[in-house]
Formats: sequence, structure tokens, C-alpha cells
Amino acid sequence: MTTSWRDRPVGIVGLGLIGGSLGLDLRQNGVEVRALVHRSSTAERARQRGLADQVDTDPGVLQPCGLIVLALPLDRLIDPPSGLREALPMQAVVTDVGSVKAPVVERWHRWHRRFVASHPMAGTADSGVEAGLTGLFAGRPWVTTPTADTDADALEQVRELAQLVGAQWLSCDPQHHDRAVALISHMPVLVSAALLEAADGEADGGTAALAKQLASSGFADTSRIGGGNPELGTLMARSNRAAVLAALARYRQQLEGLEQLVQQERWEELEGRLSRCQELRPDFL
Amino acid sequence: MTTSWRDRPVGIVGLGLIGGSLGLDLRQNGVEVRALVHRSSTAERARQRGLADQVDTDPGVLQPCGLIVLALPLDRLIDPPSGLREALPMQAVVTDVGSVKAPVVERWHRWHRRFVASHPMAGTADSGVEAGLTGLFAGRPWVTTPTADTDADALEQVRELAQLVGAQWLSCDPQHHDRAVALISHMPVLVSAALLEAADGEADGGTAALAKQLASSGFADTSRIGGGNPELGTLMARSNRAAVLAALARYRQQLEGLEQLVQQERWEELEGRLSRCQELRPDFL
Repeated sequence: MTTSWRDRPVGIVGLGLIGGSLGLDLRQNGVEVRALVHRSSTAERARQRGLADQVDTDPGVLQPCGLIVLALPLDRLIDPPSGLREALPMQAVVTDVGSVKAPVVERWHRWHRRFVASHPMAGTADSGVEAGLTGLFAGRPWVTTPTADTDADALEQVRELAQLVGAQWLSCDPQHHDRAVALISHMPVLVSAALLEAADGEADGGTAALAKQLASSGFADTSRIGGGNPELGTLMARSNRAAVLAALARYRQQLEGLEQLVQQERWEELEGRLSRCQELRPDFL
Repeated sequence: MTTSWRDRPVGIVGLGLIGGSLGLDLRQNGVEVRALVHRSSTAERARQRGLADQVDTDPGVLQPCGLIVLALPLDRLIDPPSGLREALPMQAVVTDVGSVKAPVVERWHRWHRRFVASHPMAGTADSGVEAGLTGLFAGRPWVTTPTADTDADALEQVRELAQLVGAQWLSCDPQHHDRAVALISHMPVLVSAALLEAADGEADGGTAALAKQLASSGFADTSRIGGGNPELGTLMARSNRAAVLAALARYRQQLEGLEQLVQQERWEELEGRLSRCQELRPDFL
């Protein structure tokens, strides 16, 4: 029998929105949390906020941990800060929170024998050490993408952790996950960004100025994710490029179909397709 | 001197979201409201809700009115129900609430010498006799699109009405208005609808099912207007076709530019454009 992860501290690497929220929830559930952060100013603020029981910039803080969550941005997960891999105890279960899974799986299964790829689908518009909040994962999907290389006991331990903070555990293969998030998250950022560019870029400057005055809640909603964090949007496209391009191609095909109906004044067909969209949307909520 | 519209009842034709809300606000401001509706069941419910002082299916109800608001859907405004034009007193000021202005202006200035084209930019997702609510217009733009044919005194009376219910009065020409609303309202419906179609239509059915499970608030926001009223979406495209097609062409150009950056892995340029979007968005809020 393996010792339960609950008998030992949980380690968190990075105390941004996801790492900080996880620290708060785990501590509320009586789990001892140890965190590794990059800067001493972050460590100080994280201690003040009580995001972990112990916060340090020295990787040694992770030594007693039985389960370690890499709550790092995707680029640092794919290209880890020097010393991180060496600081992870061989016997610990290691998981991540990256929103693209194929490149993470490909690297981390080589780097750590008890690695479990996972992706909690939770978020707010905030980031950084001030962003963490309790209850972020409650009722939200937490997806794992196991492969033949995944240790079954390690997988079970990560599942228990996710369920302890109230998440809904889902399992699929990495490519399947990456195609789905391209469709519902990464590609829509570009669709939404293009809308801001189109509404702004009118050659006739007066129309753009009037559009800004007249825009209401519909435009605000449709443009929200396109006006979000540019580093994050770029990182998603970069890390999930093939799936994003495939999703964009599908999207363009649909939009061109709708445009053609307007062009050809095929109003009944247009209304039929919009009716289908109205029926579809609740499936995504 | 013209008698002020406040000395006489205000007429409202149609008691849906806009007409009903206007009735409530005007009555709260001590204005007598008379309404014409199509069905007696609507009349009955409108009376129960107190949307007007007098509600009737007989056009004669409008006879004493000094100012009449046509709160009709765009198709019925462009192709009015039989008897409506004859029921409008010659000396009354007549205005509308249509969200496309050029075809309305073109017809109604021929049909009524004291017509003033206007468009209150307010709304909720609801429609029908139950939808009207107080305060809908407060702080929202109310756009007028006067032409050389517009009676200056009539225009002034409509401005007073809009300001009485707290709206922000704006003036521009009809084509300018129609191009701006195509950009921020009509074209985005199609952009958002295509997103629902793309996320649903994946040839690999498993991905679409997973996408539905994983979709979060970002997707919900971006798809909201695409999953809205299909009759309304079609009517907007139909009534503002040229401007919607021009806006879609602009949109496609921007999206293809973003897609090309992903295709060619030009990540710095992509991040630059997304940064510009982040800066732009507050101008539209």
C-alpha cells in the first residue's frame, strides 16, 4: 500500500490564481500546504494572505511533500525554471494545471515517473498573488489526460485532491482535450479580438467613434475575452497551435456560410441556422 | 408657438419591451399614455401591468395624442399593419424605435410630415408584454437621425421625451447610424453564431461532447448574442444588409490577419495585436 497523500504536506509551485486558490482550499480542508515561489516579495505577500503554511523561494521547501502541484504558466511548465525538476522528490506524485496537455504530457512523463497531467477548468480575470480565492474549483471540471505511462496510484491521488476541493473529475486523452479547449477557449479569443479590431478600424473614423458610443452589453460580452490578457492569449495559440488553426478553419467555414446567406438574401435559411444556434447554446452552459 | 407634447397624451403603438418600458416611465413622470396593441389578450395583460392609462386594439385610441411612438418590430415598421398610417393624426409628432434607420427614414418621411426617426439603444433578452420595466432608458443612448425633411419642432419634442426618461440624446445621419450598429450589434450576432456552429459541428463527435462539458464563462459570454432571438438576428441582417456585409468583410480581414500570424508563428506580432485589443475594449464600454 502507498501512503495516502493526505498524511504528508502538499506542495504547490507558484501562487497565482490557481496555486493560491488551491492553497486556500486545501488549508481549509486541514491539509498542510508548502509553496515554492520565485520572488521573496511574492513569498511575503503569500504568507500575509495565508495561501500556504510555509512559503519559500528555496526549492528545499518541497522535500517532505507527497504530492506536488505545478501551478505555473504554460510556458514555464514546458520550459521549467532551472533547478525545478531536480527539486521534485522522486517518490512524490507530480501534477500540473496547464491548459494545453499534449506538449506537457510529452515532456513531463519523460521527466518524472509519477507525473499526472491535469487541467482544472476554473478561472477569473485576475492573476498574481492577490488573485487566489476560496471555492474557485467547486463544481468546475478538473480534467486529467492519462496515457499508458501514467501511474494508476498517482492518478488516484490527484483525483482525490481535485474532489477534495469540490471539482468534477473528467478523463480524456491529451489530443482530445487540446482540440476541445481550442474550440471553446483558445480559438474564441481570436474571434473576439478580431471583433474589436473590426469595430475600431473603420476607415471612416466617425463611424468608429459612434460605434464606441453606441456599443452596449452585447458587444461588451462578445469582446470580453478578445480584450483579455494578451500574453495568455498568445501562449494558448502558441502551445496549441495545430488545434487552434483547425478550429479557426472550422470557424471560418461557418461564418462564410452565414455571410453567403446574407449575400444571397436567403433569409429563411439564415433564420433556421440562428434557431439551431439558440437551441445549441444551453448545451454549452 | 406649438403646444407642448406634455399637454396631451402620448401614444405608444406596441407594448413589447421598448413600448412597455416607455409607458411605465412616462406614467411615472405624470404623462398620460394611450396605447394601441394588436391583440385583445395583450391589451388585457398590459392594463393589468399598468403599462398605459388606456390600452385598446382600436386605432381611435391614438386620436387625442400629440406625440406617438411606433414601438414596433422593424419589419412592421417598414411594412406597417393596415390602417396604422391612417390612424396617426396629421398634426401629431410621430417617432419610431427601429434599430436600422435608412429604410425607416426613406419611407416614413414620405408617409408623415412630422416624422422623427429615432433609436433608443436599450434592451434586455426579454420581449413581449411581460418584458417592459421601469428605468430601461436611463443613461442609455437615444439616437436620432434627422434629415433635411425633419421638422425642427417635432425633433425637439422627441428629444424632450427621450430626456424625460433619462436617455442620452445623440444625433447623426441615418447611414452613419446604420454602419455603426452593423459593427457593434448586427454583424457580431453572426460572429457569435458561427462560434456555436463551429464548436458543435466537429466531425469527431467526441470532441463536441467534451467541448460542451468544458465550456466556461468565456464561451458563454462570446456565444450569448449568437444564441439569441433568431427572428431578430435575421431581421437585423435583412434590414441592414449592405452595412452588415461591409462589416463582415472588415471582420474577416482582421480574423484572417490573426490566423496568418498563428500560421506563421509570428508570436510577438500576435501579442502586439492582442495588447492593442486589450487597450481598445474600454472605449466600447
